[in-house]
Amino acid sequence: MIILGIDPGSNFCGYGVLEIDKGKIIAAGCDVIKIKKTLKLAEKLYEIHKGISCIISKYKPDIAAVESIFYGKNISSAFTLGHARGAILLALAQQGIPITEFSPREVKKSVVGNGNASKEQVQYMVQKILNLKNEPRSQDATDALAVALCQFNKERL
Amino acid sequence: MIILGIDPGSNFCGYGVLEIDKGKIIAAGCDVIKIKKTLKLAEKLYEIHKGISCIISKYKPDIAAVESIFYGKNISSAFTLGHARGAILLALAQQGIPITEFSPREVKKSVVGNGNASKEQVQYMVQKILNLKNEPRSQDATDALAVALCQFNKERL
Repeated sequence: MIILGIDPGSNFCGYGVLEIDKGKIIAAGCDVIKIKKTLKLAEKLYEIHKGISCIISKYKPDIAAVESIFYGKNISSAFTLGHARGAILLALAQQGIPITEFSPREVKKSVVGNGNASKEQVQYMVQKILNLKNEPRSQDATDALAVALCQFNKERL
Repeated sequence: MIILGIDPGSNFCGYGVLEIDKGKIIAAGCDVIKIKKTLKLAEKLYEIHKGISCIISKYKPDIAAVESIFYGKNISSAFTLGHARGAILLALAQQGIPITEFSPREVKKSVVGNGNASKEQVQYMVQKILNLKNEPRSQDATDALAVALCQFNKERL
């Protein structure tokens, strides 16, 4: 089974892919789709949609877990992030991939055991659980792996 | 010149098309894309994207004007509306249509002359300016025509 985790953003969109075979988890890939900040919003959405569509074609996930929002953010960031998530969910729906959604709190709770865990704690646990030799190149990629792990834990239980 | 006006929504997405020929404006079409409320968000985005893509192919607009948000709404509605707008802006970007954005206030100011105008005043002015025999079947279609008229007024000035 292949799980795609996504940490959405309009400038940096993290993704992480887990391959589960006979209960063993392997991090098959993770990175961040970097979007030029100078692009207009519609052009950013075009790049995000294209990037996610490519990742779906490459890894052929059975399910995708997408992080939802931390509602403490201001309304303007929520609105912009909503656009980016829209382009991502659309790419998944167009390729018929089932989608689950988790809040940042749920992800932290599932991976670290504490919904208020720090970014460093999440990074440490992701690296430990997945036996990664090096830490992923970006925090967004790590977060995306954490989202995928959250989906894995949910299925396992 | 063809102007496509869009009043975005995740359940009802209004559109209105204006054809401008030698300074004369004709309402070439308007309606609302109705989305089943029971669909999941990703499925709604799929339908919105498909609907807008069809309208672009049918009317071949030179420019699209998309209403932005009234920030008084709560953060959760802003987030959901952001997703719907994301699918719309993406459809426009994929077909290379230039996009302008106007706030509800700018649209009312441009069409009625008063940024605080009521829905009825907007409806009355849209019908009058475009010489419509009947009022559009839905408020969202009227609002979309108002957004397109706002773009027309901006270009004229």
